[in-house]
Amino acid sequence: MTQIKNIGVFTSGGDAPGMNAAIRAVVRSAIYYGINVTGIRRGYEGMINGEFFAMDRKSVSNIIQRGGTILKTARSEQFRTPEGRKLAYDQLKKHGVDALVAIGGDGTFTGAHIFGEEFDIPVVGLPGTIDNDLLGTDFTIGYDTAINTVIDAVDKIRDTAESHDRVFIVEVMGRDSGLIALRTGIASGAEAIVIPESKTNIDALCERLEHGRKDKLSKIVIVAEGDDVGGAFEIGRHVKERFPHYDTRVSILGHIQRGGRPSCMDRVLASRVGVAAVEALKDGHRNEMIGVIHNEISYTPFEHACKHNVEINPNFLKLVEILAI
Amino acid sequence: MTQIKNIGVFTSGGDAPGMNAAIRAVVRSAIYYGINVTGIRRGYEGMINGEFFAMDRKSVSNIIQRGGTILKTARSEQFRTPEGRKLAYDQLKKHGVDALVAIGGDGTFTGAHIFGEEFDIPVVGLPGTIDNDLLGTDFTIGYDTAINTVIDAVDKIRDTAESHDRVFIVEVMGRDSGLIALRTGIASGAEAIVIPESKTNIDALCERLEHGRKDKLSKIVIVAEGDDVGGAFEIGRHVKERFPHYDTRVSILGHIQRGGRPSCMDRVLASRVGVAAVEALKDGHRNEMIGVIHNEISYTPFEHACKHNVEINPNFLKLVEILAI
Amino acid sequence: MTQIKNIGVFTSGGDAPGMNAAIRAVVRSAIYYGINVTGIRRGYEGMINGEFFAMDRKSVSNIIQRGGTILKTARSEQFRTPEGRKLAYDQLKKHGVDALVAIGGDGTFTGAHIFGEEFDIPVVGLPGTIDNDLLGTDFTIGYDTAINTVIDAVDKIRDTAESHDRVFIVEVMGRDSGLIALRTGIASGAEAIVIPESKTNIDALCERLEHGRKDKLSKIVIVAEGDDVGGAFEIGRHVKERFPHYDTRVSILGHIQRGGRPSCMDRVLASRVGVAAVEALKDGHRNEMIGVIHNEISYTPFEHACKHNVEINPNFLKLVEILAI
Amino acid sequence: MTQIKNIGVFTSGGDAPGMNAAIRAVVRSAIYYGINVTGIRRGYEGMINGEFFAMDRKSVSNIIQRGGTILKTARSEQFRTPEGRKLAYDQLKKHGVDALVAIGGDGTFTGAHIFGEEFDIPVVGLPGTIDNDLLGTDFTIGYDTAINTVIDAVDKIRDTAESHDRVFIVEVMGRDSGLIALRTGIASGAEAIVIPESKTNIDALCERLEHGRKDKLSKIVIVAEGDDVGGAFEIGRHVKERFPHYDTRVSILGHIQRGGRPSCMDRVLASRVGVAAVEALKDGHRNEMIGVIHNEISYTPFEHACKHNVEINPNFLKLVEILAI
Repeated sequence: MTQIKNIGVFTSGGDAPGMNAAIRAVVRSAIYYGINVTGIRRGYEGMINGEFFAMDRKSVSNIIQRGGTILKTARSEQFRTPEGRKLAYDQLKKHGVDALVAIGGDGTFTGAHIFGEEFDIPVVGLPGTIDNDLLGTDFTIGYDTAINTVIDAVDKIRDTAESHDRVFIVEVMGRDSGLIALRTGIASGAEAIVIPESKTNIDALCERLEHGRKDKLSKIVIVAEGDDVGGAFEIGRHVKERFPHYDTRVSILGHIQRGGRPSCMDRVLASRVGVAAVEALKDGHRNEMIGVIHNEISYTPFEHACKHNVEINPNFLKLVEILAI
Repeated sequence: MTQIKNIGVFTSGGDAPGMNAAIRAVVRSAIYYGINVTGIRRGYEGMINGEFFAMDRKSVSNIIQRGGTILKTARSEQFRTPEGRKLAYDQLKKHGVDALVAIGGDGTFTGAHIFGEEFDIPVVGLPGTIDNDLLGTDFTIGYDTAINTVIDAVDKIRDTAESHDRVFIVEVMGRDSGLIALRTGIASGAEAIVIPESKTNIDALCERLEHGRKDKLSKIVIVAEGDDVGGAFEIGRHVKERFPHYDTRVSILGHIQRGGRPSCMDRVLASRVGVAAVEALKDGHRNEMIGVIHNEISYTPFEHACKHNVEINPNFLKLVEILAI
Repeated sequence: MTQIKNIGVFTSGGDAPGMNAAIRAVVRSAIYYGINVTGIRRGYEGMINGEFFAMDRKSVSNIIQRGGTILKTARSEQFRTPEGRKLAYDQLKKHGVDALVAIGGDGTFTGAHIFGEEFDIPVVGLPGTIDNDLLGTDFTIGYDTAINTVIDAVDKIRDTAESHDRVFIVEVMGRDSGLIALRTGIASGAEAIVIPESKTNIDALCERLEHGRKDKLSKIVIVAEGDDVGGAFEIGRHVKERFPHYDTRVSILGHIQRGGRPSCMDRVLASRVGVAAVEALKDGHRNEMIGVIHNEISYTPFEHACKHNVEINPNFLKLVEILAI
Repeated sequence: MTQIKNIGVFTSGGDAPGMNAAIRAVVRSAIYYGINVTGIRRGYEGMINGEFFAMDRKSVSNIIQRGGTILKTARSEQFRTPEGRKLAYDQLKKHGVDALVAIGGDGTFTGAHIFGEEFDIPVVGLPGTIDNDLLGTDFTIGYDTAINTVIDAVDKIRDTAESHDRVFIVEVMGRDSGLIALRTGIASGAEAIVIPESKTNIDALCERLEHGRKDKLSKIVIVAEGDDVGGAFEIGRHVKERFPHYDTRVSILGHIQRGGRPSCMDRVLASRVGVAAVEALKDGHRNEMIGVIHNEISYTPFEHACKHNVEINPNFLKLVEILAI
């Protein structure tokens, strides 16, 4: 095992709050251990294009509290090809980068996995995505902030729902995962939650809306965007058709869910795994995602840290039913 | 002038943050002046249906900080007819209500104006709408909170815009008025603002996006929903067509803009005009909206307090151009 | 095991955000399982004084998002005496309450433990305290909200610290525990953390402030109120004495840390353990605190759920040192 | 009138949210009008020490939403002496700065006034202080954000006050002015407000606490730090002495009031006066503060823009009495 002298760090895929805290932790801990750090802008695309710059402790001053990513992020078609990856590797060699920390989600790790097998460069990953849909960590960086942003928004919407006795169908992020919908549905006191992990029964949903509390006319349904019925507008259409006398509205929360100052837990998680990533590289780890499971640092091979596999706790769905009584 | 013994208070039209603070001020000041207060639920509709209840100081405890309206609000088709208004008047007589405070916007005052002319009952109004589109007051109750909610959301969106170098077309409320778009556009550092008060020149807009700062790829355009081009999606379509290489996204902020804890200024405004409304009724005022102009209480006949008339300060549009340089 | 017919629920000790969400979950799930619920106001004191009232689903409408506790809380000297506890038991019998859910912290459970042993009434507890200092649960209800409130405040203070190149000594809650200080110190990017769990070396602290980054003059120290040196003012005095040329300020965050809308995670935790408490009573559990460990419901005898025992993860202290480089 | 080629901009005195938005507006509008901009760090102290740097449009990117001041601020003893001011003037000449925009409060303008009279350099000022205690503008930059921060904090404190039936004495900023206390007192629903502008009658205060609503035990008193009784602790001492049976607590909000993301109104105000300052210098204005009165840009000679003169609207004090009924 040769000693690592220069760690490259980059963010890739959708941005998530806490990515900056993770970058800061990687940079500061590398310096702490006497290793240089090279920032790579715009993910794999920037790696191919040579968007490299040296980072010092000051490069990451005053960013722990900021949303987004100072390293910017992008999707890269080129990196999907062997030629693109060869170009990326050449750039890393040219700039003396001999190890990588990739911050992102499923797509990021798929790329990192292939790259780490094709070329002799150790790569570790940090789970940075609001979707919380990765195996190998209890929570991903950004999830806690995103669910707080959602309940903040739904609390506001409920003010209007109650004032007007309205039904609101609120769509939250989650193309393949209902994890955002699940916790925010419980926390916002929703009457029902619609998620991609379970087949949606529109009749049962309408049943629940109708036979719920008679004394309460305002109701909230939280829908994950990836739901099989086709999102909040489609569900809203069904509800309006079935209950023309309800004042039913649809709200798509959209991009606000990605931004904002990271929550305390997201900053702590990002700081922990950021430092652990540098220590892991030092200790010879490679091709692994660094997460936190049961409050301990955990190491998961990239091929297992992919999404789609996260199971929904059935007790959570039961909770919603009980609490909406 | 007979002495007023029982003031009825209600909210009508779209809910706005600060309506509860206004209700509280009406109730507390009426009690202070030895007048009874009757709460009327669901606006004119509830008035017709007899949804009346006596309010005391405790009825409005711990509501100053809450969004929405504890009196609920609704639209009433029936009140648009002479028969409906007669029913409403009969209910007021039956419950001994001899004066009214109506909290709402343009539609509310139109109704109040007709009602106040048809029947012998003094009515005053409080400007409660997030749109700020009423003559007779510098600001309406709810506007300040709404624009803070918008910049909160756009600050979050900008995190993503900057991370991905994206163009975001963000639609804010304002069916007939660009006042929300105008101030939030300036405050969020938008590259351009599109409002219903001025004809939108898509070519000029694209020009500005293109010939703005070359070193900055992320851009924000704030669009009022009532814009003549047809809202954010339509503008987004134009921008995408013209600049296929841009990563252009559309975000409709929607209903979150109505809710939430009212800002300090909205609570102060609501408290001032709420007390002034009761004092105005005591002093014989009727058919007037109570507002604040230049930090002084002002009284505007309902027929002048309608919307559409608020002019856009051209200096504000100039500001956006200068600051987006 | 006799079937439970009427569960009494109360909050005791310091209030914590999420207590209302827990009350709501207890009430709704009891109703779901066909059990009556009696609310008891002002903790043990109210139990002795007979402050009982029947609760239905509507009693807990629209409270999931509110800080504080609708059941109010109080300390009770009387309940520390056998006579006081006898009075409490008599009141429970009189009102037909045959099981209890106690929401609070260490003191609450100590009382519940004695009471549950003296009298034949099943009692279970929910961990409601911002301090997170209870064994038997990964997190207590209120902790997540409190640490977010703290970083919100410290983010604001850092704006001033950086603008003026100041040193700020910020005191956070934690009379016996440094858990709030620990996570908020990491998340706010503090230069140092001072906690009761480890002996404070003022010289080492000053050393770190002095020999830290020369290019950065603003520094933040997070101090738990229970620290052995004597709180933030005392530490501030030392720092001022040692570095008279620094512009050193002290800020005591104080009571804002207890209030506010609960975070998403606190609402989810409160909802889960609230439902689990009712199910536990149904299943014959007694004298146990219901928590969540490793994302599973856990049951801990009251005598083990006391505080002081929570150990500080040494890796966290190391983190602060690394990240403040 | 010679044409201005290079405007120097600096912040001085206590930092205030919105200062960055003002700096941005000065820089962008100067560039818009073809004028160079020089940033001066650390106020007058930095001017004397030659802390100058050229600013372009990018220097002020992504700062409109940030608290504090990127130009930093400091107090300068040296600038109070003629020698210090001569050094400052020499530095300005040396760096080719031929006009100044000073952002700050009373002390800043006092310095600017003397400097502008001693040397031939046009200086205009922008009102940047959370205290709102300047003549010549309806509001100062930072005030609106600060009062929102205060009500945010007091809303949290009220959660605890109501849960425990406590009296809270809350101290807010305002050494010479009760303007923060006044509006936040109204907006937080305080039972009483104590301000430096009016002699405090402790007996009358206690009277009001005692004879207020009997059914409400939790009470909030908002105290401006400059009050003649001696701040919140002293008032708390009196209240505890008089009402030993009350559970009375004191909370000093402190430095959190200065920081944080500026509100929408503060950003709009800062943007307007920032642009107007550059235009004023272009038009030959000097020795004036640029404010907004009745929604129009206003120009006030420095000697009149000092503090202590702002009068308290007696209607506001009356409001508190009425609403606390």
